[in-house]
Amino acid sequence: MNALLQDAAPAGGHDAPSPVSPAAATAVATGHPSVRPREVPPALLDALAARFGAAQFSVAAAVREQHGRDESSFAAPPPAAVVFAESTADVADAVRLAAAHAVPVIPFGAGSSLEGHLLAVQGGISIDLNRMQRVLAIHDEDLTVTVQPGITRKQLNEAIKHTGLFFPIDPGADASIGGMTATRASGTNAVRYGTMRENVLALEVVTAHGEVIRTGTRAKKSSAGYDLTRLFVGSEGTLGIVTEISLKLYPLPEAVSAAICSFPTIEAAVRTTIQTIQLGVPIARVELIDARTVAMVNAHSRTTLREEPLLLMEFHGSPASVQEQAATVQEIAGEFGGNAFEWATTPEERTRLWGARHNAYFAAVQSRPGCRVISTDTCVPISRLADALLDSIAEADASGIPYFLVGHVGDGNFHFGYLIDPDDADERARAEQLNHALVYRTLALEGTCTGEHGIGLHKMGFLRDEAGEGAVETMRVLKRALDPQNIMNPGKIFAM
Amino acid sequence: MNALLQDAAPAGGHDAPSPVSPAAATAVATGHPSVRPREVPPALLDALAARFGAAQFSVAAAVREQHGRDESSFAAPPPAAVVFAESTADVADAVRLAAAHAVPVIPFGAGSSLEGHLLAVQGGISIDLNRMQRVLAIHDEDLTVTVQPGITRKQLNEAIKHTGLFFPIDPGADASIGGMTATRASGTNAVRYGTMRENVLALEVVTAHGEVIRTGTRAKKSSAGYDLTRLFVGSEGTLGIVTEISLKLYPLPEAVSAAICSFPTIEAAVRTTIQTIQLGVPIARVELIDARTVAMVNAHSRTTLREEPLLLMEFHGSPASVQEQAATVQEIAGEFGGNAFEWATTPEERTRLWGARHNAYFAAVQSRPGCRVISTDTCVPISRLADALLDSIAEADASGIPYFLVGHVGDGNFHFGYLIDPDDADERARAEQLNHALVYRTLALEGTCTGEHGIGLHKMGFLRDEAGEGAVETMRVLKRALDPQNIMNPGKIFAM
Repeated sequence: MNALLQDAAPAGGHDAPSPVSPAAATAVATGHPSVRPREVPPALLDALAARFGAAQFSVAAAVREQHGRDESSFAAPPPAAVVFAESTADVADAVRLAAAHAVPVIPFGAGSSLEGHLLAVQGGISIDLNRMQRVLAIHDEDLTVTVQPGITRKQLNEAIKHTGLFFPIDPGADASIGGMTATRASGTNAVRYGTMRENVLALEVVTAHGEVIRTGTRAKKSSAGYDLTRLFVGSEGTLGIVTEISLKLYPLPEAVSAAICSFPTIEAAVRTTIQTIQLGVPIARVELIDARTVAMVNAHSRTTLREEPLLLMEFHGSPASVQEQAATVQEIAGEFGGNAFEWATTPEERTRLWGARHNAYFAAVQSRPGCRVISTDTCVPISRLADALLDSIAEADASGIPYFLVGHVGDGNFHFGYLIDPDDADERARAEQLNHALVYRTLALEGTCTGEHGIGLHKMGFLRDEAGEGAVETMRVLKRALDPQNIMNPGKIFAM
Repeated sequence: MNALLQDAAPAGGHDAPSPVSPAAATAVATGHPSVRPREVPPALLDALAARFGAAQFSVAAAVREQHGRDESSFAAPPPAAVVFAESTADVADAVRLAAAHAVPVIPFGAGSSLEGHLLAVQGGISIDLNRMQRVLAIHDEDLTVTVQPGITRKQLNEAIKHTGLFFPIDPGADASIGGMTATRASGTNAVRYGTMRENVLALEVVTAHGEVIRTGTRAKKSSAGYDLTRLFVGSEGTLGIVTEISLKLYPLPEAVSAAICSFPTIEAAVRTTIQTIQLGVPIARVELIDARTVAMVNAHSRTTLREEPLLLMEFHGSPASVQEQAATVQEIAGEFGGNAFEWATTPEERTRLWGARHNAYFAAVQSRPGCRVISTDTCVPISRLADALLDSIAEADASGIPYFLVGHVGDGNFHFGYLIDPDDADERARAEQLNHALVYRTLALEGTCTGEHGIGLHKMGFLRDEAGEGAVETMRVLKRALDPQNIMNPGKIFAM
C-alpha cells in the first residue's frame, strides 16, 4: 500500500485479517513451519502484572487481538499480554522480565505496518508505546527535535508548528516516529529530504538485555565509531526497542507551488521524471498516478480529471527558485507531450490538487466492493524506472486482475495495488505471482524489493535473493550477537 | 588537521614519526599496555609469498616501514609484510590465509589517516589496495559510480569529468575512496552534499573469514533488512575490507560563485554562519579562518588579506539561485559587521580565493620552523558553535602555544592545529590538554569528538565518554561477532 494512500484509510481502521491461517503465517515468518509460538509462563505474566498493574498491563482478549494484527494481510495468534509503557524504564523492565523467561517482545506503535511486523508469530508480549508521545526537546536553533517513539508524524508537526520548522517524512499513514524509525520509512517528500536513514540523528534504545544505550549525538556529522544509529534504523524491532529519537527538521519553505500534469502515455510521465532527476532539479514531490487509477478517482469523487497518466509535483524554495524549478520541469514535460499543467500555489488549491492522490486508495477499493489489496514496494535506480514499470504494467494488464498504480517515482519507487477477491485463492496466488515477477525484474535492474515498507514477514525470500545468503547470514550474526535468545520481534526479516 | 589544509601537504609527504615509543602507541591503541604485537608465523609468510609472488608480496624493510605509518603523530613497529592486492580475490585470499593463522590484517590506501589507523599496533600484514583503482561502472543516467577502493577522490573526479557529474566529498588529502569510506570522511562540501554516510550507496566487503558479501543495491532508498552499508562505513577497517564502493554523484552546478568576507570578530563570523544554516540557505561551502591564521598566510604568501576572521563561501545552483543565496548571506553578514565581500565567479578567481585556505597549513607550519601539528576535530550542533569555539580560543590563547584555526563551520566542525615543539614533552602535554578541554566542552554541548577524522588510536578514551560504555560495549559485541579472532585492524576505535 502506498504512503499517501494510507492517508485516506479510515482513522484507526484495521480491516479484518484476511483468511491466512496462523500456521501459514508462522511458516511465512520463520521459513520453518515447525517453529511454534513459544510458551509464555504464568510466572512472567504474574511478574508483569505486579510491576505494571492494571493500568499498564492487560491480558484481555480484545486488547491482545488489537495488538496482534497490522495493515498486512497476514494473521497469527495474538500476543499473550500487552504492556502499556509510559517511560524508557517501563520498556527496559518489561524487556528484562521477558528476557528472564526467554519470551519474545514486540514493540507496537500506530499499527500501520504493511508487512506483518506486529504479528506475534512466535508468541510473546506486545509492548505498546503509544503513551510515550512526548516531545522531549525542541532545538529549533539547531533544526533538531527529540521525541519519544509513540508520537505520530502529524502530532510531531503540530507540536513544532510554532518554530517555523517541519519534519518532512510522510509515509501516508499517520505512523508513529518509532515505527517509521524501525522500518526506515520515507514517503512523498523523500525525493528531496531523504528517508528516515538520512533524518535520524541519534537514538536511545533498550537492548535485548533490557539495558539502555544511546547512539549518536546531535552533531550533524560524526566519525565516532560504528554507526549504531543506522544499524537500529530499519531493524524492524529485531535488535532493540527505540525509546527516544532525535530528528532533523527543516525550515518551512518560503514558497511552495504544486502542479498536476497529464501525459499521453505512462512512459512519457516516467521519462519526464527521469530527466527531472537527472538534471538535479530539487523537486520536493513527484508522484505518478496511472490512467486507470485516475478513472477510479473520477468515478469515486465525481471529478473530471483527464483520464491519462498524471504527475503530481510540488516545488519548495524561495519564490524565484520555485518558479525556476517549475519552468524547468514544464519544459521537460512539454518535450514528452505533457501538457495541461494545472497550478496550485495557495494551501487550499494544493489541498484540492493532492486530493486526487489522497482519494486514490478509497477510489480503488470501492471500484471492486469486498476486495483486498496486495501491494508492492519495489524501487530501482532512476534510469531503470521505465523498464521496471512498463513490463510490469503489461503483465498486470494481461492478468485481468484489477489494480491501481501510484508511485514516488522521483525515487524510482512505486506501488501496484492488486485488488483481489479474498475468497479466491487462485486470484491471490496470481497477484502474488505478479509481485514475484516484479520483484525479480527489479533485482535484475539493480533495485530493491522494498523501498520503504520493510521486509517483515512478506519479503523474507526476496531479501535472500536481493542481498545474497552471505549478507543475510551477516545480518543473522549481528542478530545473534545482540539478541542471543532471539526475543526481539523474532521471525521477521530472516529465518534464524 | 583540516581537510583542505592537507591539500597543501607535500605530495607523498609523510613527516617523520614523532617520538612516541612503540610501547606507548600500543598502550594507546589497546588500553592494555600488556598487549603486544602478535607473532606472524613463517608459515604464513611462506603461504603469502607462494600465493602472491614477488610482484605482489614484500617483506622488504623499506616497504614495511612505508606501510607502518600515516599522517598521525604515532609510531609503532611496521607490519611483518605487505600484500599488494589487485583484485577482490586477492584481498579475500590474503585475509583467509591470515585468518588461518589468527594474524591481523590492516588495509592501506593513500596513507593519509590522521589518527593512526594504519599502524600495525598488534602486528600483522598490511594489505595495500592502491592497485585496485578501477572505475567499474559509471551510471551517469542514475548519478552513481562504482569503483575499487584504491582510487583517490581526485582520480575519480578526473575519470567522470566527461559525464558532467562530480563527487563532492573532499577530505583535503587526495585520500582513497576506500579510506574515506572507512573513516566516514567529509570535508568542505559536506554542509551541502553530506558525508560518506550519505553518499555511499552499496559496498562489496571481504569479511574476517575471507568471504565476499555485498551490501545494498544501486536503488536510492531501501528498507531491505539491516543497513550493512552504514555499518561498514566508518568502521575503520575493523569489521571487513571494502573492495567495491557504489557512490552517489551530482550534476556539476550550472553556476558557481565564491566569496571571501572579513569580520570584526570571530564571533561575528560564527553568528553569520549559524544564521545562514538556520535559514536553510543551501550554501555549498562555508569555511572559517581566524585572524592569526590569516596573518600567517599573509606572512607566508605575501598577500595583503585583512588580518581579521574570514569566511570563505561557495554557492552552487542555477545563476538565479546562486545570486539569491549570495544576497541572503551578504545581508546576514552585514548585520554582524561583515564587509569587504570579495567575489569570484570565474574558475581562476576561485582558485586564487581558495588559495588563502589552501596555504593556511603551510603558512602555519612555516611560522614555527621544526614544529609538529596536533589537530582537533570536534563537531557541535550549529547553535553551540560560538560556545564551543570562543572558550577554546581563550584557552588556546592563554596557553601561549602557537596555533592555527580553520573550520567547516557550516557543519559545526572545526580544527585547531597546535604548533608544538616535538622535543618539548611539556608543550605536547599542554596541547593535548587543550584538546582534552575542547573535547569535553564539546560533549557537554551535545557534540562529537570527531566530525570526520575517525577514532583510530587517538580518541578511544573520548569515544567511551561520548558514546557511553553501553554503546561502546555494543560495538565490541558487533566486532566479536563479525571478527571473532580480532584480526581486522585490531586495536583501533576501542579496546577489546
